[in-house]
Amino acid sequence: MTIRSLSLLAAGTAASLALASSPARADEGMWTFDNFPAAKMKEDYGWAPDQAWLDDVRNAAVRLTGGCSASFVSGNGLILTNHHCVASCLFDNSTGDNDLLDHGYVAATFNDEKNCPGQQAEVVTKITDVTGDVKKAIGSLTGEALTKARDAKIAEIESANCTDRETTRCQVVTLFGGGQYKLYTYRKYSDVRLVWASEDRAATFGGDPDNFNFPRYDLDGAFLRAYANGKPVKTPNHLKWNPRAPKEGEATFVVGNPGSTSRLYTQSQLAFEREVRLPVIVATYSELRGRLIRAMEESPEHAREGLDMLNGVENGLKVYIGRMKALNDPDFTGKLAAAEAALREKSAGNAEIGNPWSEMDAAVKAYRKLYMPARFIEPSGDLYGYAETLVMGAAERAKPNAERLPGYTDSALPLTEKRLLDAAPVYPWLDELRMEWSLSKAREYLGVDDPDTKLLLGKESPEALAERLVSGTKLADPEYRKQLWEGGQAAIEASDDPMIVYARKLDARQRELEKEVDEGYSGPAAAAGAKLTDARFAAYGDTIYPDATFTLRISYGKVEGWPERGRQVPFQTTIGGTFERATGAPPFDLAPAFAAKEDEIDKSVTYNFVTTNDIIGGNSGSPVIDKTGTVIGAAFDGNIHSLGGNYGYDPVLNRTVVVSAASLQEALETIYPSPRLVKELAGK
Amino acid sequence: MTIRSLSLLAAGTAASLALASSPARADEGMWTFDNFPAAKMKEDYGWAPDQAWLDDVRNAAVRLTGGCSASFVSGNGLILTNHHCVASCLFDNSTGDNDLLDHGYVAATFNDEKNCPGQQAEVVTKITDVTGDVKKAIGSLTGEALTKARDAKIAEIESANCTDRETTRCQVVTLFGGGQYKLYTYRKYSDVRLVWASEDRAATFGGDPDNFNFPRYDLDGAFLRAYANGKPVKTPNHLKWNPRAPKEGEATFVVGNPGSTSRLYTQSQLAFEREVRLPVIVATYSELRGRLIRAMEESPEHAREGLDMLNGVENGLKVYIGRMKALNDPDFTGKLAAAEAALREKSAGNAEIGNPWSEMDAAVKAYRKLYMPARFIEPSGDLYGYAETLVMGAAERAKPNAERLPGYTDSALPLTEKRLLDAAPVYPWLDELRMEWSLSKAREYLGVDDPDTKLLLGKESPEALAERLVSGTKLADPEYRKQLWEGGQAAIEASDDPMIVYARKLDARQRELEKEVDEGYSGPAAAAGAKLTDARFAAYGDTIYPDATFTLRISYGKVEGWPERGRQVPFQTTIGGTFERATGAPPFDLAPAFAAKEDEIDKSVTYNFVTTNDIIGGNSGSPVIDKTGTVIGAAFDGNIHSLGGNYGYDPVLNRTVVVSAASLQEALETIYPSPRLVKELAGK
Repeated sequence: MTIRSLSLLAAGTAASLALASSPARADEGMWTFDNFPAAKMKEDYGWAPDQAWLDDVRNAAVRLTGGCSASFVSGNGLILTNHHCVASCLFDNSTGDNDLLDHGYVAATFNDEKNCPGQQAEVVTKITDVTGDVKKAIGSLTGEALTKARDAKIAEIESANCTDRETTRCQVVTLFGGGQYKLYTYRKYSDVRLVWASEDRAATFGGDPDNFNFPRYDLDGAFLRAYANGKPVKTPNHLKWNPRAPKEGEATFVVGNPGSTSRLYTQSQLAFEREVRLPVIVATYSELRGRLIRAMEESPEHAREGLDMLNGVENGLKVYIGRMKALNDPDFTGKLAAAEAALREKSAGNAEIGNPWSEMDAAVKAYRKLYMPARFIEPSGDLYGYAETLVMGAAERAKPNAERLPGYTDSALPLTEKRLLDAAPVYPWLDELRMEWSLSKAREYLGVDDPDTKLLLGKESPEALAERLVSGTKLADPEYRKQLWEGGQAAIEASDDPMIVYARKLDARQRELEKEVDEGYSGPAAAAGAKLTDARFAAYGDTIYPDATFTLRISYGKVEGWPERGRQVPFQTTIGGTFERATGAPPFDLAPAFAAKEDEIDKSVTYNFVTTNDIIGGNSGSPVIDKTGTVIGAAFDGNIHSLGGNYGYDPVLNRTVVVSAASLQEALETIYPSPRLVKELAGK
Repeated sequence: MTIRSLSLLAAGTAASLALASSPARADEGMWTFDNFPAAKMKEDYGWAPDQAWLDDVRNAAVRLTGGCSASFVSGNGLILTNHHCVASCLFDNSTGDNDLLDHGYVAATFNDEKNCPGQQAEVVTKITDVTGDVKKAIGSLTGEALTKARDAKIAEIESANCTDRETTRCQVVTLFGGGQYKLYTYRKYSDVRLVWASEDRAATFGGDPDNFNFPRYDLDGAFLRAYANGKPVKTPNHLKWNPRAPKEGEATFVVGNPGSTSRLYTQSQLAFEREVRLPVIVATYSELRGRLIRAMEESPEHAREGLDMLNGVENGLKVYIGRMKALNDPDFTGKLAAAEAALREKSAGNAEIGNPWSEMDAAVKAYRKLYMPARFIEPSGDLYGYAETLVMGAAERAKPNAERLPGYTDSALPLTEKRLLDAAPVYPWLDELRMEWSLSKAREYLGVDDPDTKLLLGKESPEALAERLVSGTKLADPEYRKQLWEGGQAAIEASDDPMIVYARKLDARQRELEKEVDEGYSGPAAAAGAKLTDARFAAYGDTIYPDATFTLRISYGKVEGWPERGRQVPFQTTIGGTFERATGAPPFDLAPAFAAKEDEIDKSVTYNFVTTNDIIGGNSGSPVIDKTGTVIGAAFDGNIHSLGGNYGYDPVLNRTVVVSAASLQEALETIYPSPRLVKELAGK
């Protein structure tokens, strides 16, 4: 879900911080395709794309449901994304004998391309404004009534517009925190296969220490392929592969799905982040990281089986620590406060807007009381997750579409079901570790005598409970999950699987808390959000863009380094730099193929480069496109300064980190050779 | 070093927060014995102790160099302290066959009393004001010159006043951050032995989840004995043991050594805590906690060998998380800001005071650049610690007394030497775990390309380096340490022990950083601190008290519960409550002796109780004394609200948690019987 991270160097003061609640400045903005700021770009760059250009790149853009972005780069459904976006697929296809994450994978033929469990590729085919319909359904409702009416209308719209659920997906997206609602219609491909990926060490050279840093030396690219009816899909709308070096200063576009930003947060929402949410995340996930690191040192199996999760935890931690640093920087937060003050001043006296800030303050105040129980009432772990989906799903599916919880509406069910039923390895030790951790943290943060702690633990310890549930459940078996899913409510009620019994026990309280959060926070925040959006448009017109929502956006910028402690960070690295940086000690050990082929590799090829594009987690794998609409790389990270980008973009310091198409070409030709792909990418 | 901690319930808004930089209010204050606020106490309580009373309790008060407080409670050197203050001693005397921490220990005779490695007991015999001498030596110096001149003068005073280093210790203490200097002379007892301690589970029932919580059910008391020349020392100055129940509302005194508070911090110092120091501590120690928890699950040996360290880490984490919460509470920090503003206003126009706040701002700004390298240049681990002491000590001892670093002056050397040479078990896996952790965190926070990271790691990984050093060193052997210590600089230079080689490699940079910190921060901060003290005395006279410095203080208060979420927390628990709270699952499993003797135990006896006394970490083990000067318990914790007490005391919410003398008496008579101690405590 994240772009991948950087080391904790000083986050730097955002002298020129631009803010989403003010008009966008410099290269700021994750723009929706229906509001690309062509005039502004033309002013700054002397050129801007026209509608045909925008349509072409939009049609080639792919969203991966695992939380990444991608693009079609051949007419046969070939997809370019990041290596770290296919790591789970490599992981799930590995065995003790054959560790694909370690060794990489090059499919020699179509038949060798391997299924990626839980993965789905989606291409936007239509965007429809449904703001009027949803707002009408909401009317003057508030609290939980608002969220219920809104969700029912959304379910209705989604269901009515995507009757073919095999190949389409409909999703109504809330933009501007409740100011706009848009229906995104997707062509979906639920059969996605692995085509090409390097050794993990080549993709993650420098590991966590280098994550979110630059200069960088990572082959963080990979190829997937979309299938339909067992055959590669035809994709006439694809980007042209262009394995050339980037030029300093040239314009670049990043087209992808930034996951989530909080640039429109009010002061009280930011205070909640800084005072409550970020501290609990950083402290608890740091502990999980420690538990994992040690467990992975226990055996080669643990090392292999835990790696994917550790990468995710470390990446996330860097992101959250970076955000905490940004919100602890008075210069940074002072600018956010000033932007809010300016908007309030511009809105003063506008009776229709009223005072949504104080409404948001009240909502956040209510949320503060609910946050910890709502956070900790759901234990962590794949097996528990399966149980929760089965228990909730059985009850929800028995209801009319409009009354179901969001994950279980007609339009959402296919993906929920796919994720539940796809075969994927489960490592009991890892699930037990996660469950023990989350239950012990629940007890720590809620307190021993809290009724929710008592509900979660009964008279058992976190350790004993996690052991009993994980060792006793049969949910690791996809066939067993399928039986329970198809058996519906009766099968769930009759089950004596301990994990199902446990999920059943927690179900009522989870629903109660969700309802309380809707009533106290989500409903009022959506109402306030709608008014804040009105205020922003009244003050700034269409010079503003919505917060990221893991839907398709485009950002423009240019190839450019940045100033760091008095010197300029260069805009690119070469493959040869890897050999200079290598120490031999992990994670700075050369990938075996790099070491073996050192003499054959063209060391002068541009490896990674940075651009000023405004991105965030979820953009991982996004194509980096030049003026001519060809793809010259894939975004895979931000620099350390980009972590504060969750709250505000700094054009001087925030950078996107890209793996060049040129280096991937060199890898395809020389390091992990795939003549088949070279040919396909050349359009031959 | 800490009093022990609570679960993370809401820290509560300090509606009535009292502040050290304003005159003390209600029961606030950790008073030096030469400035006890008798008039104020008399006003509030209708009674206050006279000088004879104060002298008597002062003469019975004991400081334990492990970071705890204690008191003599018989004429034969018997010392009352907390169980958690003797945990290291139990741990160090344990073997795989006989886990004393688990089973407790009751010495049947003097001969059975077991030596506690590294432990030393100290009693204040004299306090002399040396402010004039030290300030004269400082003159108008600043930066590192200031700290050098100050430390040289301190070394001279200490050396001149304690010529008998076998039985006395001299320590010049800096009060008010540089406003006062006082020479404390101690009678010291470097032979301290273990007399009585319960099973660990009885002392720590509820474990980390209950730590810093109340109601509480912990037998956190233990007895040591001071020896001299192989015999119990005679201690005519001791407190009378009074195993009676406390009465709600009665006056109580806590006499002990609060370790450290930051109540006199300026706004810039507080900002540094909140923005820099606390976040790095919480994130890195949370990870260490996770590594330890997992490693302890690997085997019963690891569980036993890691427990003492885990307890320390979890206790510390709760403290720091509590502080972070306090500094993230705008109501709390608003009051601190207002107090500073008030002092600035009162000081305006006083030319002698000038503007020490802006001097402190500049010092903190310099410190921000030095903090991370200074923090991470010293790897963690007992074995590395020995190496560092040996390497630094060899060089320092070759210098004249006045030129040595503070830990190596004539007056400090005996304790440094005792800690280095006392035999204590070293567990290589645990040392390797700590070292690997600290080196990997250094790389994370300093960055891969930082010169200090390169100095620390060279081309090795943290994992490989820690393994090589720990497996290769012979420093676990006290005889080997002794040889190197006695061999001085020549032995150190000739050594090829890998840990010594490593410490030698870091030595110059550590000294350089220490010098830079002195020059940029410590020196200027001491100069500013002296002026701030002048400002406080000018504004508030002697109604103020200095920040805690792990020197003897007295606080007064009363037995009283507190209001929590609309209801009153009762002031005491009974032993019987333990049986109701027990679930059978750790850490809520009954101690075996409690389970075995349930029928014999008097369940109505007061177990733990709370008082309004103002304490902090270091006060652990402090006697809780009634009006008549008899001891009715030992302080062992604060409630969750007391964690913000590092910065300000809230009389409504902050509470000291005490184990009653009555419950210890019941344990001595019935649960872990020691007729010998019962007799001794009764003065028979």
